[in-house]
Parts: sequence; C-alpha cells; structure tokens
Amino acid sequence: MNFTKRTKTCGELNITGKGEYITLNGWVTKIRDLGGLLFIDLRDRYGLTQLKINPENKSIYETAMTLGNEYVISASGTVIERESKNMNIPTGEIEIDVDKLEILNKSDVPPFNIEEEVKASEELRLQYRYMDLRRKTMLKNIILRNEVYHIVHNYFKDLEFVEVETPVLMKSTPEGARDFLVPSRIHKGKFYALPQSPQTYKQILMIAGLDRYVQICKCFRDEDLRADRQPEFTQIDVEMSFIKQDDVFDISEGLFKRIWKEIKNIDIITPFRKLTYDDAILLYGTDKPDLRIEKISEIHLITEIVKDSEFKVFQDAVKKNGIIAAIKLDRIIDNKNKKIEITRKITDNLTEYVKQLGFGGIGYMKIGVNGEVSSPIAKYLSQENITELLGEFNAEEGDTIFILSGEYMKVQTALGNLRNKIAADFNLINESRYEFLWITDFPLFKYNEETGGFEGEHHVFTIPRNEHLKYLDSSNRNEIESIRAICYDLVLNGNEIGSGSIRIHIPEIQNKVFKIIGLTDEEAKSKFGFLLNAFKYGAPPHGGVAFGFDRIVAVLCGVKSIREVIAFPKTVSASSLMDDSPDIVEEKQLKELGIKLEKK
Amino acid sequence: MNFTKRTKTCGELNITGKGEYITLNGWVTKIRDLGGLLFIDLRDRYGLTQLKINPENKSIYETAMTLGNEYVISASGTVIERESKNMNIPTGEIEIDVDKLEILNKSDVPPFNIEEEVKASEELRLQYRYMDLRRKTMLKNIILRNEVYHIVHNYFKDLEFVEVETPVLMKSTPEGARDFLVPSRIHKGKFYALPQSPQTYKQILMIAGLDRYVQICKCFRDEDLRADRQPEFTQIDVEMSFIKQDDVFDISEGLFKRIWKEIKNIDIITPFRKLTYDDAILLYGTDKPDLRIEKISEIHLITEIVKDSEFKVFQDAVKKNGIIAAIKLDRIIDNKNKKIEITRKITDNLTEYVKQLGFGGIGYMKIGVNGEVSSPIAKYLSQENITELLGEFNAEEGDTIFILSGEYMKVQTALGNLRNKIAADFNLINESRYEFLWITDFPLFKYNEETGGFEGEHHVFTIPRNEHLKYLDSSNRNEIESIRAICYDLVLNGNEIGSGSIRIHIPEIQNKVFKIIGLTDEEAKSKFGFLLNAFKYGAPPHGGVAFGFDRIVAVLCGVKSIREVIAFPKTVSASSLMDDSPDIVEEKQLKELGIKLEKK
Repeated sequence: MNFTKRTKTCGELNITGKGEYITLNGWVTKIRDLGGLLFIDLRDRYGLTQLKINPENKSIYETAMTLGNEYVISASGTVIERESKNMNIPTGEIEIDVDKLEILNKSDVPPFNIEEEVKASEELRLQYRYMDLRRKTMLKNIILRNEVYHIVHNYFKDLEFVEVETPVLMKSTPEGARDFLVPSRIHKGKFYALPQSPQTYKQILMIAGLDRYVQICKCFRDEDLRADRQPEFTQIDVEMSFIKQDDVFDISEGLFKRIWKEIKNIDIITPFRKLTYDDAILLYGTDKPDLRIEKISEIHLITEIVKDSEFKVFQDAVKKNGIIAAIKLDRIIDNKNKKIEITRKITDNLTEYVKQLGFGGIGYMKIGVNGEVSSPIAKYLSQENITELLGEFNAEEGDTIFILSGEYMKVQTALGNLRNKIAADFNLINESRYEFLWITDFPLFKYNEETGGFEGEHHVFTIPRNEHLKYLDSSNRNEIESIRAICYDLVLNGNEIGSGSIRIHIPEIQNKVFKIIGLTDEEAKSKFGFLLNAFKYGAPPHGGVAFGFDRIVAVLCGVKSIREVIAFPKTVSASSLMDDSPDIVEEKQLKELGIKLEKK
Repeated sequence: MNFTKRTKTCGELNITGKGEYITLNGWVTKIRDLGGLLFIDLRDRYGLTQLKINPENKSIYETAMTLGNEYVISASGTVIERESKNMNIPTGEIEIDVDKLEILNKSDVPPFNIEEEVKASEELRLQYRYMDLRRKTMLKNIILRNEVYHIVHNYFKDLEFVEVETPVLMKSTPEGARDFLVPSRIHKGKFYALPQSPQTYKQILMIAGLDRYVQICKCFRDEDLRADRQPEFTQIDVEMSFIKQDDVFDISEGLFKRIWKEIKNIDIITPFRKLTYDDAILLYGTDKPDLRIEKISEIHLITEIVKDSEFKVFQDAVKKNGIIAAIKLDRIIDNKNKKIEITRKITDNLTEYVKQLGFGGIGYMKIGVNGEVSSPIAKYLSQENITELLGEFNAEEGDTIFILSGEYMKVQTALGNLRNKIAADFNLINESRYEFLWITDFPLFKYNEETGGFEGEHHVFTIPRNEHLKYLDSSNRNEIESIRAICYDLVLNGNEIGSGSIRIHIPEIQNKVFKIIGLTDEEAKSKFGFLLNAFKYGAPPHGGVAFGFDRIVAVLCGVKSIREVIAFPKTVSASSLMDDSPDIVEEKQLKELGIKLEKK
C-alpha cells in the first residue's frame, strides 16, 4: 500500500522548525471543530502534534470530517506558530497547516477511551491489550523496562560477565514448584520441562570455566493462582566462580546503584544493610521486612520483663516455652497535624485481626501524660514491670505498645504482620524511600510436619556454613534444623527481589544434602545425575543470585502489580485474555504427540 | 568452604608485575616434572599462567605431586621472570614462584583431552558439554556470541527501538511447522504453544503504537530431524511502523555493517545486492545463491540458440514447453598452478549426479584451442549454433559448458545445485568473502499439488505488491501464483539468514489471503481472531524482519554447524545428551495435567 511516509515524528517539532514542510504519520487522538477550522491532535509513540485543517482546502477538509478517533493518517503541511500555545507539551508552540491528508487505516470505536485515568476493568484492558498499551503510562512502563534491560546488559558487560542462553526445553526436575511439561513427538512418552530457573545450567557453566555468567531470561512455574505471580516471568540470572558471598553482594549493589542512578537519578546508599534470617525474624517477624515503615518499633522480646505478671495468658505462654513480645506505635498525627487517637474501634479491629492469626487477643498499653498507662492488662503488672516496659521502648506520651504471647515463630510472624497492617492502615510507609536489605544465613532445611521429612528451605544446591558442615552427618532434627546456609535474599521495600547462595561444589557434600531431603541415590542420579557427574571433573567454588526483573521494574515504575510492566501478561488463572490461550488443540496434534486427554 | 581467593586472573600477568605477590585460582592444565622442579600450567577463562614448584618447599611439593589434570587449585606466590620464555602467550615471560597451594577440588580423569584438535566424537562432546566448553575454541565462540548480543542491543537502542519480551506460553496456531504444546493444569484439556516466532505479537505491538520493536528471542519448531536445525533457536526479531521495504533494508544493512566492523574489523559494502526471487531462479536456480562462487557463470537460457538442433533431448524439451539452459565453468587451476582437466571421470560423475535429479544425462562442451569444441552433442549442432553458444558465454580455451534441458524450474534448480556441487568439488568458493544478498518479491502463494490448494509461501501476513492486489479476488491458479509479495530474504554466503515482509494491515486484505489458503472464516477467527480484531482499531502500515542469530554467529566463528555456537545444543533427534532430556516423568505429573500416554 502506498502512503506518504513521515519525515518527522509527532514528538520532535518545535518553534525552531517554523516554516518547514513536513509529513507526520500517527493516530487521531482528538478532533475539535472550531466553527469551520478543524484541529486534530495526532499521536505517535514520541508525542502529540496539532494539525490545523482549513475548510478552504475543500477535499482535505472533507476527508478530515470523516475521521474518527484512532484512525491512522498521514498528514503533510507547513509548521506554523500556534495562536494559542500549550506550554505543557514540547510541541505546544507549533501546529501543522495541513495541505495533504491520507487515511492509512480506519478504526472502529475503541472499546475504552485511551486516557491515563483508565476507567476500563483490568479484564477489558487485557483483552484489548493493544489499546491499553497506547496509553501513555503503559508505554512509559514498557520503555522504562527497555531502559533497564540495557543498563543490566551494559553493567555486566563492563564487568566481563558473559551472557549465555540456557535451554528452554530441558529436563523435568520437580523441586519446589511444578514444572510446565512439553511432550516430545520424536521421543513419544517423554517430556521436556520449561525451566523454573536456569540453576543447573548456570552451575554447569561455572564448571565449564565461564567464570562470570549473566542472562536475562524467562522462567516458568506452574503454580496455583496467586495474585501478582505470572506463569512465565523474567529473571536476571547471575553466577560467578572463585568468589564468596561478599563478591555477590558487591556486584549486586553496583547493579542497583547504576539502575537507580540512571533511571531515577537517585544515589542509593551501598553497602546495603544486612540482617541474618534469625535476626530478621527476631526484629521484624519476617524475612522480608519493609524498612520504609516509620513510627513502629522493631519487635522487642519482653518475656523477661513480664513473665512474673499475674496475667494468665503470659503465664501460659511461659509455661509452654513460649515468649512474650511487643511492638510500639509512636504517637502519630494525621495530615491535618492532629494526633490520631488509638480508639477502642482501632484496638477492637486489631484484636479481630490477631484472632484470625490464632491468638486469643492482643494486649495493648497506651501511654498518657507522665508515664501513666491505660491498658486492660496494666492491672496484672507491677508498677516496676510497667516502668521497665516503657523503658525498654523509650515510650513517651501518645505511644501505644501492642503485646502478643505464645510460641516464638507464631508470635514473631504475627507481630511482623501487625507492623505491616498498622503501617498500611495509618500510612506509615514512607513511599519516597527505597530500602534495600540483604537477609543472610537462611536455614538450609525445613522440617515438613506432614511428611515427617526435610525439604530444602531455598534450594538444594546451597552450601552450609563451614561450622555447620558437621551436622550434615547428624540425624538429630534440632541439629539439622540449626544448619545455616550461605544463602541470601535481597529485599526491597518489603518485597523479595532476589535470592542466591554460594553453591555446593563438592560432590560428597551434595550427596549428603540429597540424603537429608530423602532423595535416594537412584532418584538423585535420575534427577541431577548430570550435575553430580559434572562435579567430578573439577568444579570451582561458585555462587550467584537471581533477581526478579518484573518486580524491579514495577518498583521503578511505582506500580503495585507486575502486570503493569509486562507487555502481554496473563491473568491470575494463567490465561491470556487477548489471544485466548491456553486453548483446545486439534485431535491430530495430540495424536502426533502420543498423548490423550483423561476423561473427566 | 574457605579458600584463598585470586587477586589476579591467569591471563593478565606480565613482566611489569615482576616481584608482585599474587594469588591465582584455576584449573591444572599440564604438569611437567623437570627432575625435581615442577611446572604447572594453570588455566582460567582469561588465560594460562605457569606455576613453578620448588621441591625445597616440601609440603607444597607433596601437595603438587598429588595433582592431576583439571584439578581446581589456588596458588599464591611471587611473580618472577621465566628462564625460558614463551612469547606466544601474553603471560609467557613470567611464572609464579609458588609458596602456598590449596586444592579446591579434584577431578576424575577427563573423558577426553581438553585440546583444540578435539578427538572425541560429537556425542561424547555433547554428553560432557562442560568439558567441551573448556576448550579455547568453544569458549571463544561463546564469548563472540556474547559480543554479538551486545552489538545488536546497542545498535537497535541507538535507533530508538524498544525491546519487548513477548510471551513464550502462547496460543497454538499451527501454520508452517509444528508447535510444541504445553498442557495447562489449571485449564485441563487446554494447551499453550511455544512460539514458532513472535510474529503475531510483534504485529500487535505495532498496532499498540510501539513504532520500533526488537527482541533477541527463542523460537521453537517441532520439526523432523534435519541436520543443523535445533528445536529451539534464537532470532533477532524486528518490526517497524510507517515504513517501506527500503527502511527495513537500511536498518538491517546497518546492523550487519556494525557487527562485521566490530567483530571482524571488516567494512562490508552496503547497500547489499538485490535480486528478485524470479531473477534469482533465472540466474542461479535457487533463492539462496552463494555469490562467493567464482569461475562458474550464472545460468544462461540457451533455448533460442539450440532449439533447432538435431539433438532429440533438446527437441523434446522444446516440444513440452520446456527450456534448455547452461552454465560455464572457467578454466581452473589447482594449487600447483596446473590446469585441471575436465576428464571423463568428472563428466561421468556429474552425469550420475543429474541422473539422481531426474535427468537422462548432462550435455557438456569443452572448449579447446581456436574455439574448437569437444562434446558428445557437438555433432547435432551447426557451427553457427556453436559459435553463438560460445559467444553467449564468452567461452575461452579451457572452459567447459554444462547443459540441461527440461521443465523450467527443474532445469534451473538442477543447474543451481550443480553450481554448488562443482564449486565444492573444485574449491571454487572464495571463503574470504562475505556475500550478502537480498532476495525480494517472493510469490505470495504456492500451489500444493497434493491438497489441490494454496499455501502461504512465506507467511500469511505478507502484503502483495500493489499491482497484484487485484488477483486476490481471482480464482485463476496462474493469476494467484503470479502474485508477488513485498517479502524478502537476506542470504549470506548461500545461507538464508533472515526473512521478512511488509505486513497486511487492512483486515479486508488479510481476510482475502486467508480465503485463498482455504481458511474458513471460523478457522481464521479461532486461530487469528485476536489479530484480525486488532486490525480493526487503527493498525499502522508496518513490516519487519527476523534474523537467525545462531547462523550469523556460526558464520562469524567460521564454523559449519550452529551447534558449535550454542552452549547447550540438542542433537538432530532433539535430545540433550548431557541431561538426558526429554525424559519420562512421574505418573503424578501427568495426572495433574489431565493427560495420559497413548498405549503403543
């Protein structure tokens, strides 16, 4: 099809181009009929330019009158200065005096308006993704994502990392999440799996001597419906040889420093804070603490302070080897600078919340003037205990202390959740901050009460800390549970955005780990035989990390859902509403693959 | 595990570092025992450094004596000047006087020697890919591949292309090759497909207004065993809006210019040569001519010259509306500057070859002194015809003309094959040249004699040339076959390395194309409904191209097989010998997916 090709984009013309004869191609965004004169906003990826159509030019005017929104046109004319300028857009000082107009394509009436404050449901947006992507916000997200690719590529290139593509059709090694399977036609009855991550391949690359590997790659997990997870997602995958944990931290921190500098012009502070897993649980009740939370204290264990109180709930907890712990909410003020009272309604609401977490209720203590406290449990505590408690928290007038008691992990987790809830309820998250935090020294194994066996807490290729290596030969549950691994997560604003470890490179150690998680020699060989085999031929010490690309971009774009930064995302039920996948296939295709559907 | 971390790599030390105390980590590559003194070549990705172990340092010497090839060690010591220098490697002037030695890992005896002229079979190399990748050649290929990624990324970024990841789990639209299918667990009985290419998505991105898209992406085709094809392969995928064919050519040529300059420091000449598909068949008998072939002429139609000869084979061909065509082989000399005689053995061999292609034999004519010819068919030709024939080819003493007759496509294809065969047999391919060539104006449809219907020659989204649009309404086979499309291949050295087209953006035209290939409205809707729907909302004129990344890298590396430039390739039967995929999976996994295996 012939058409007059643009000589400029809709984003680049300004007053310096006055008098130039140009052609633009783009989409009709708005048409205004000012009693004869027609003004058309023409849009492309680069911006918006105003076209002026004079009724004196009859044939053009008639064509223009047939235009609708989202029509694709080619318009040629002279750049002229506008009478009424719009200084809010780069092209706002000029317009095009059109003397040639071609319709390149028509458009039906769009299913929703292409506007920033989109009113359409997410379903409709996903179904008509090509319309949704025309919105400036979505376009900006996709372009920012593109910028981040480039920063990542260049950062790692500068550091002599080699990008290697690992296979998408690989072996199924069901560990952790479920594999997506791909039936083989040539080898009927056999299947490939899509990678949950390139973990085994990147370790193989270290054994091959590649030294420094990076890849931005798709990973696949067949998980049950979870908000903001995608069956396919993107990962920055990194592995290095002859290194220790600190090297991974340095490389990672440099990456985020560069991304934040280039994208947001923010100098983030490195090195990042570090917390061991045990300390994170102790202080925040979670391994993903959101350090942007202000005005809520860390968790304090107060067992020693209140254990002798007459409060039966506390006594019970102590008796069962449990603990008593608390957090303090500072005096908070609303946006009118007025103190927010912690009312009965609020405490009732929090009581309801902890009941759902399996507690009988929540203890609270409001601090008034002169250290006076108002609290249903104050009567069970001595004045000495109360003073000690206030001292523990440096509590002042207007502060409130919330107390829970029971089994350690349960209490900590609940207080961790409570911190998040209170922060959300009272807007105590400082959204202007970016809080990076390494969580280190995760447990290597977790005991599964259901199966009565151990599972890898992170993954099964992680090396234990030196001083815990000896427990790999133990059969004592406590000892095995006490093993801490050289394993780390990177947390940003309360989201895990990365995870890694120093890997086992000695076959004997790997075999011991497999044994503890209950893999027989045969199973280990069938699942990971090629990796175990590779370990025999001079595997170097190595380790790495993988970052969640989608989540990082979502944080940079300031959006909550990763669906806002993925061009063609799937719904929580793993469907694409645009192309209706997954879909039924022809009987013939299944026959060729040698499979059939189970009858319902 | 504790170990002494390197302070230098094995590739960076030279005489300027003399006296420095350093630590290296790497693989033992060679051990030489010079009557007491031990010399060890230590290897890492960056190079090779010689270690010197003095027997006076007893504990180190004893450790060193236990080392074997491919052991991983950490060695510390002082950089000293070598007595006997090796000026062939950058580190050849120095060695390390080792005073600390740690074994980081042992190695079994390698399944094959890590050497450049590898003697192992390709099967063994694939099975132990981590050993094969330790070979310098393989490492170089992988690193060169990495360089090409970066050039591609940066080239397109400079031109404001946006990289977008398109889905890997998509809808099955079996067209051309077979899809790999992925059963959905959540939507039992339904399947995703892996993309044969992101074709539909990149068009959708144009409709979304992204303007310029690029992606280096994996594509998947479930094809039958073909040498040098991979079930998953990598593509540079490009799409642009508001452009014409020449814009795609410009962008593509710039890319290859940059790659060849940066990788090989060669200035390739642009614009590339262009040939229409029809001319390519006419001149070279193939749509993938290898322009590096020297000393063999293009194909000449000589029907007019010899049609009145008394040679029955020619007469028959003319009677059946066939043709007579020929190529000329120049006088060739061997590497001792001696003329190669076209002997009876050679012509017999070529006769045998064309017989396999369905011909009765081959006509040949050797040109001697003074234009005398020696040829079994000379006696059927008048002297006038012979003179005209020699004139047609500017034939000189020592040249040979080979003649075939019959149906046009059959003769052209055979002569095309013959050019390749003779070029290979007599080393007439100039390996120092890189010959890029655009083939344009492919037929839009090809008639399938078996099904009695039409198929898309390239793909079904390609726009016909303007002057042929009218034939979309025709039901005349000749007219439909005569439709030429704005469709192009890029050929490099006789390999197709890219393919693209200007796409249809008008739904009515797309519907007509679907109709000709026999898709009912319903089928079209079910397979491509989302794309057809998207066309309704203002699709811009657009087009693009996709390049075979693996093949390009293979050409740059000077290797024949793309398996040499893929880290973890599969065999021709689509298996991975390293990890034994595809493999059987657990019954439980199939049950969860709601599928079962067909009984045999």
